[in-house]
Formats: sequence, structure tokens, C-alpha cells
Amino acid sequence: MVGISDVAAQAGVSKATASRALSGSGSVSASTRERVRAAAVELGYVPSTSAVSLATGRTRNIGVVMPHVNRWFFAEVLEGIQVALLERGLDLTLYDATPGSATRRLVFEEFLARKRFDGLIAVGLEPAESELERLIALGKPVVSVIGTQRRTSVVTLDDEHAAVLATAHLVSLGHRRIAFLGGSPGTHWPHVEVARYAGYEAEMTRAGLGDALMRVPAELSMPAGYAAAVDLLGDPTVRPTGIVAACDEVAIGAIIAARRLGILVPSALSVVGIDDHVHAEMFSLTTLRQVPHEHGRAAVELLMRHLEDPDAEPVALSVKPRLVVRGSTAPVAGRHSAGAMDGGLSPER
Amino acid sequence: MVGISDVAAQAGVSKATASRALSGSGSVSASTRERVRAAAVELGYVPSTSAVSLATGRTRNIGVVMPHVNRWFFAEVLEGIQVALLERGLDLTLYDATPGSATRRLVFEEFLARKRFDGLIAVGLEPAESELERLIALGKPVVSVIGTQRRTSVVTLDDEHAAVLATAHLVSLGHRRIAFLGGSPGTHWPHVEVARYAGYEAEMTRAGLGDALMRVPAELSMPAGYAAAVDLLGDPTVRPTGIVAACDEVAIGAIIAARRLGILVPSALSVVGIDDHVHAEMFSLTTLRQVPHEHGRAAVELLMRHLEDPDAEPVALSVKPRLVVRGSTAPVAGRHSAGAMDGGLSPER
Repeated sequence: MVGISDVAAQAGVSKATASRALSGSGSVSASTRERVRAAAVELGYVPSTSAVSLATGRTRNIGVVMPHVNRWFFAEVLEGIQVALLERGLDLTLYDATPGSATRRLVFEEFLARKRFDGLIAVGLEPAESELERLIALGKPVVSVIGTQRRTSVVTLDDEHAAVLATAHLVSLGHRRIAFLGGSPGTHWPHVEVARYAGYEAEMTRAGLGDALMRVPAELSMPAGYAAAVDLLGDPTVRPTGIVAACDEVAIGAIIAARRLGILVPSALSVVGIDDHVHAEMFSLTTLRQVPHEHGRAAVELLMRHLEDPDAEPVALSVKPRLVVRGSTAPVAGRHSAGAMDGGLSPER
Repeated sequence: MVGISDVAAQAGVSKATASRALSGSGSVSASTRERVRAAAVELGYVPSTSAVSLATGRTRNIGVVMPHVNRWFFAEVLEGIQVALLERGLDLTLYDATPGSATRRLVFEEFLARKRFDGLIAVGLEPAESELERLIALGKPVVSVIGTQRRTSVVTLDDEHAAVLATAHLVSLGHRRIAFLGGSPGTHWPHVEVARYAGYEAEMTRAGLGDALMRVPAELSMPAGYAAAVDLLGDPTVRPTGIVAACDEVAIGAIIAARRLGILVPSALSVVGIDDHVHAEMFSLTTLRQVPHEHGRAAVELLMRHLEDPDAEPVALSVKPRLVVRGSTAPVAGRHSAGAMDGGLSPER
């Protein structure tokens, strides 16, 4: 079996240097590290990580807790975290914590208590304040993605500002009957939904439309947005001319519902989302862009800072959204010639 | 600090029994294991896993290698694996291996070589035969999800049979001009695409339509299906009456394209997919159902068998798809009254 001394000889360094280069602890120049790693790969050397862990007191592993991996936002954050950790030579242990599930209880009661990680990234764990307490009590650095808590560092979209910009976009196009689609009792992301509705409400009020608030509840998914929009758009006497959707999946569901009802988007109905979801472009969706992949990278960077300096103060990183105008929004009908703006059925949009 | 002897006293068992119950090695009755675990949770006992690992030679951790987490199939498989591992008290370390990326090289050259796991599940790693060699050479049990290799146990959909059933469904509805949408040079999943096309070709030939094969390449995504369908459907003189899509995302893209071109689904065009994707129902998509969550669970069960018996022979588990008929397929126009079958614009579908 190939030992550390073989690697050291091959790389032309001392055993101690080879060990430091491979464990990532202690100071070794980049070129030496590269030479030692190349030698290790060439010889097929495999360190015993359990021994490394006991010696250095570090697992070289980061835990990630998230409620879903099979949704766009979470999957993108996870990819961002994974790539940033791989670049640093760190492993990623995934803890699935679906809200209300038996496995979530297991994760918090048993798995996390084993502390097989140097630090934790908690993605979208709201509203479980008691669970966050539990994470902090483990005594390892924690960084959150999504949320408002001030006890850990956090990376989050400025949700309220995103909804302000979405609403202001429709107001500037002459819309007055503007509905907000999304938000539901018992939601798993109250902060996101509350903040986005607050942004809509604030901007409507600022525009003198405070008496015209309309809200249709919907979970943050495409089928829920579809069903809510069928309800909202079915009655022509109360139909809005614009929809601010709580997220892109809800917005896309609303566009599909409008098409099935024969309501042209954008000439008879403008729809704006929040996210820039992977499918937004295909639906010509005007939206407020966030890049969750970058939230994941930013969370890793914050965690590294806390690992290097356990006394560092928690930081809140608020990411600003950017308006991306596509074909799902247009001036309200009557304000300009509607026909020229209509892209609802043209195949190239 | 709480020690193993405190846990043993609380549970009324010997130290050795408490240790076996918590490490999962050796034989302990289910009720004793439960009592010891309850005592450990109550007292806040946390074992040193590095010490456990050195003592038992097991990491109690399973590695999962997959090319994407942000796609429906992979995310669902991952959730299935995660839940099955949590139930067994095992950790999941995730290795992202996006095809052609620098991080994929890193994962294979450095991360996997550390062997911080008892076994591996490789999801959709095709076509990297050389990489599979590398995984097998690690000397740990490997189970694959998707694929045909015979050197590891594998869980896979019977892809060819799925396409046979999809094609036969359209043939039985009287369709003769049936196109296959999907498959592209340089694909990351050649096995899936080749097998599904082969099923279409075989069934067309069996139905005496071997001279009428039509194929439009498309990557396995919604936007790619949309673009390919716009190309295919734009020319009325060659337009098919039926489409077998290589997967549901391609099928949904084709339905969206048809709507934008004013082609009614299903009265003027029938579309059938393969998957039963989370969005299939919203688009009334007729499809061949697979449940990737269950593939993940099955992969964990196979891996457990190999961990218990290192000499067990590899097993190929071929999952049979099931036809789910919804509103996107109907008898070919002219065969029956088309109007009565048309559900393309009714909002309740």
C-alpha cells in the first residue's frame, strides 16, 4: 500500500510537508501543494480521513440543511454551495428536512447532533426558530440562506424591494387594477411571502391605489398559480389588467391559465414575476432577477470567514433584484395601440 | 460531558450494549436500540464519530455522485435516496459531477479517492465508462441508477419498453404520421435516448410504419422541446398528427409550441411523453409513468445488500413504466368527431 513517505519522496519534499499539503492544514506554497497532490494522484495514495480528522479536529465537511432539493431555488443554491466547497477541497453532507416530515425530526434530533461537520448552511428553514436555536446550540458556525434572523449570518434577496419594483413597473405602464397572486396560510416561507406582499402594498399605496389592493392566495408553485389565476380571471367584471406574482412559478401558472381562458398576454393582461426561473424566458416572462447559485457561493464565503474567525460578527447580505423586461408586460389596453404590443401568440416570443 | 456510561445507566444496559446500539454494528434488539437512542437524545449524548469510524472501519456515510441536482429526475432520485438513508441512520455526502466541468475532474481525482463513505450510488453518470472503472477500483460497493452496465447493480427504467408503449398508444388511436422528438449528438444520456428511440422505431416497424420514421433532435429539456416542435410543426405539409416525446419536459415544450402556433392539442395533434413529471398533470399530458423517488429507495436497498454481503452478485432492476392517459392524446382527426375530443382550450383540463 502506498504511504505518505512514498508521496513525499515522489514530490521531493519532507513527510511533514507532504502531510500538510494533503490535509490542507498548515502553510504550504501553492506550487508545493500542487506537486504533492499530483504525486498522490499518480501513486494512488489515499489518506485515512478518520485519522486526519482526529489529528486536526476538523472534519473538512460542511453540512447543508434544506427542506427540498427538487425545487428550482433550492437546487440552484445547492449547486452553488457544492461548487464553492469543491473548489476549497471540502465535502458536502446533505440533510433533507422536509417540513413536517418524520425525517426532519430525525435530522434535528439525531443526525445534526453527531456534528460530523465543521459548519452548517441552513437554506430556507423558516419558520422554525426553535430549530435554528438547536443549530446554534451545536456550537458550530451557521450561515442561513433566506430569512431575517440576526443570530447567524444570512444571505437573502431583498424580497420587499423586488415586489416594489414589480408593482412600480405595472403602475408605470398605466395599470390601475393590479392583483397580487401568492401567499398562503401555513406557508413554509412566511418571510418571503409577507415581505413580497408588503412591497406590493407599499408601492400600490404610494401610487394612490391603496384602496384597490387585491390578493389571491396561492402556494409558491406553478399548479397553484394556475388554479388561483383561473379563479381570479374567470369573472370579467372584476378581472385585473395586471398581476404581480409572488414568484415566477406562480406567474407561469397564471400565463398558462390566461391562455386557456382566451385572455391575451400581454395585450389584455400583464404578468410580472420574481426569480428569473429557468423557464421564465420560454414564457417571455418579465421578472425581477435573482441568481440563487450566487447565494450559495456567498453563503460558503461567509461560512469560511466564521470558520477562520469564530468571533466574527454575523453579517446580513441583502441581494438586490434586477428588473428583466420581456413580453409578458405591456402598457394597459387603451393607453397605446394594443395590437402592436401583443406577443401572446407569436411563436418567436 | 455526557459519556457512554451515562447513556448505558439511563437505558439500563451494559456499556458494550449501549455502544453497539448507537454505532449500529453488532446485534442488538430493536427495542433495546430504541431505548438506548432515547436515552442518548434525552441526555444530549454525542458520540465522537471519528473514533467510531476508526473502531468499526465504517464511516456510516454513503456517497452519491450525480451530474445535476437541479432537474426533476435527479432531484427526485436524490430525495428518495436521502429518505431511505436517514431511516437507516446513514449520512449522505453529495458529489456534483456536471459533465465536462472542472469540478467533475476534481471529484473523480481527489474527492472520491478519499473514500469517506462505505458505498456509492452513481446516478446518471453515463457515458463515462472510464469513470465507472474508477469508482469500481475504489473497492467499495457501487450501485448505479440509469444505465446498462453489468459490473455494478443498477436500477433503471425499461426505456425501450416505455417508448414502445407510447408509440403503440398513438398507433391504436389511428395515428400514422408519428414523429419522435428528442435525442441529440453529444447528449449526456445516450443510453436513455438510444433506447427510447429504439422502442419508437421497433413499434413503428411492427405497425407497418417503418417507412414513416420521423425524428427531430432535441436535448431533454422544455425549451429544447419547444424549439424543436416549432421547427417540426411550422410546415403544414409535413406536419405529424402525433408526437412521441423522449421525455415529459420535451413533450410540454411541444404542447406550448403547438398552442402558440394555433394547433389544437389533442384534436389536431396528439402528444405523449415519458416520465410523469411533476408538471405533466397541469398540461393534461398523457405519459408513461416512472417514479424516480422509488428508484432512489431501491438503489439504497441494493447497496445495503452489497454492504452486508461483499460477494453478492450485481443485480439489474428494470422498472416497468405504466401508461397514464390524460387529455393530450385523442383519436386522429377524421376517425371520430374531433370537436367532442378537443380539450385544448378548456380551462378545467
